[in-house]
Amino acid sequence: MQSQKDNLILAPIARLHGDFQQRFGTPRQGALAPHSQAEITLLPKWRGKGMLDGLEGFSHVWILSLLHAGSSRHTPGKIRPPRLQGIKVGVLASRSPHRPNPIGLTLARVRAVRGDTLWVSDVDLIDGTPILDLKPYVAQADRPPHVHSGWTESLPKERFQCRFEPAAEEDLQRLAVLGQIDERERLRNLILEVLAQDPRPLPYRHRQEKTFAMAIGGMNVIFKFQTPTFSVQRIEPGLGPAKRKPGARSTPGPLPVAPKRRFAKPS
Amino acid sequence: MQSQKDNLILAPIARLHGDFQQRFGTPRQGALAPHSQAEITLLPKWRGKGMLDGLEGFSHVWILSLLHAGSSRHTPGKIRPPRLQGIKVGVLASRSPHRPNPIGLTLARVRAVRGDTLWVSDVDLIDGTPILDLKPYVAQADRPPHVHSGWTESLPKERFQCRFEPAAEEDLQRLAVLGQIDERERLRNLILEVLAQDPRPLPYRHRQEKTFAMAIGGMNVIFKFQTPTFSVQRIEPGLGPAKRKPGARSTPGPLPVAPKRRFAKPS
Repeated sequence: MQSQKDNLILAPIARLHGDFQQRFGTPRQGALAPHSQAEITLLPKWRGKGMLDGLEGFSHVWILSLLHAGSSRHTPGKIRPPRLQGIKVGVLASRSPHRPNPIGLTLARVRAVRGDTLWVSDVDLIDGTPILDLKPYVAQADRPPHVHSGWTESLPKERFQCRFEPAAEEDLQRLAVLGQIDERERLRNLILEVLAQDPRPLPYRHRQEKTFAMAIGGMNVIFKFQTPTFSVQRIEPGLGPAKRKPGARSTPGPLPVAPKRRFAKPS
Repeated sequence: MQSQKDNLILAPIARLHGDFQQRFGTPRQGALAPHSQAEITLLPKWRGKGMLDGLEGFSHVWILSLLHAGSSRHTPGKIRPPRLQGIKVGVLASRSPHRPNPIGLTLARVRAVRGDTLWVSDVDLIDGTPILDLKPYVAQADRPPHVHSGWTESLPKERFQCRFEPAAEEDLQRLAVLGQIDERERLRNLILEVLAQDPRPLPYRHRQEKTFAMAIGGMNVIFKFQTPTFSVQRIEPGLGPAKRKPGARSTPGPLPVAPKRRFAKPS
């Protein structure tokens, strides 16, 4: 860390490697995609110092990241949250990525820690995101007894129905057999979790039968929406590498199964 | 935000004005000092855009800050948490301020929002701390149903007894009458909250009867410890300005009384 006058220069301590290759399809909250996984390995400068020792005892970790995929240098004062029917709120009263300082705050589940590598699930970050800091979730500090969550409490809790067309099921099976993807069932569940939240940009939501493609887990997932159901039409090998280079994305062994119910009711 | 190669240059959006003038006496968590208060006004560049609009509906806010009072440029791989009897943990498995990127994450209570100014309580930040970002606390994202908090769960929940000596009570009364401090009862409670956590650095804790001084709320608070009780000996006008310049620290009117019980049991 250095400072120039009042500015602060930060350098990433790690980069995240995960399932989401684009903003389109990346969930707006990690808890909405419990089958997402990511690996965070400290950069060489920070290795061998035991910086992650003890993190394995925590169920959750705060990931402070640089929201590097922001499309614009312009920071609006107010934004329109996608689910708020056009109503505007102050950007600092939202978790929008378009912020004066584009620092992301993600609560992910700790799945394993080995040396200088942390594996997490429940991720809402794009593959390659620079990581600025990791902090353990401490119930005494982070979980006050009585909370209310402002305008977010009035949002619809809608989850869309989704299904795989037979051709998409075959594609998934074939990609797995050819070794172009790992973990077929996890990726299948992850696609369903992402579609259940309706990843389509607002201006496209009225266009029934329009086909969309999203890049997830090294796959190109082609889907469409016809009220009230999303259907996955086809799955192709992804634009990016279908599998990472050997060792770069190894899992630390079997990870525990994510529980089905993930949300606390706002209290 | 600009980036130079892999670095990220951030500029504060505000500065916090609050009760704690030094690291000594600043609580390690905001929730431990519910009577602390602070004011955050956006810097001129960000005013008049409605950036805080809607934040008043949330009970809590995340304050991302620059931990500018860190004493050293050296980041250790592991640190010894003061309450862990000398055991070391990885710095990224702790909330220690001595981090590779010194970004603080504080959960404070929202007390009022007026235009470009936010008033909070439950603060663990030093007066003058540069603020990088504010984000609303959203229960659905920030409050997973089942958590465990690693090594922090084994810490003693000790709260020390504290009392004001008659001379200190008189000092407090006199400073209030002379207009050198505001809000006598709030500051009295705040001092008790800070002492209840034992603010003394580890190397000094065995020295019974040693006198300490801490700068809180524009006062210089002189206290000592004799097992099992802290006692406030005297209170003097502070080293810094006893009152801020007019208008700089105005409160938005009466603030609601902080509830007595503040912690969720780790679940």
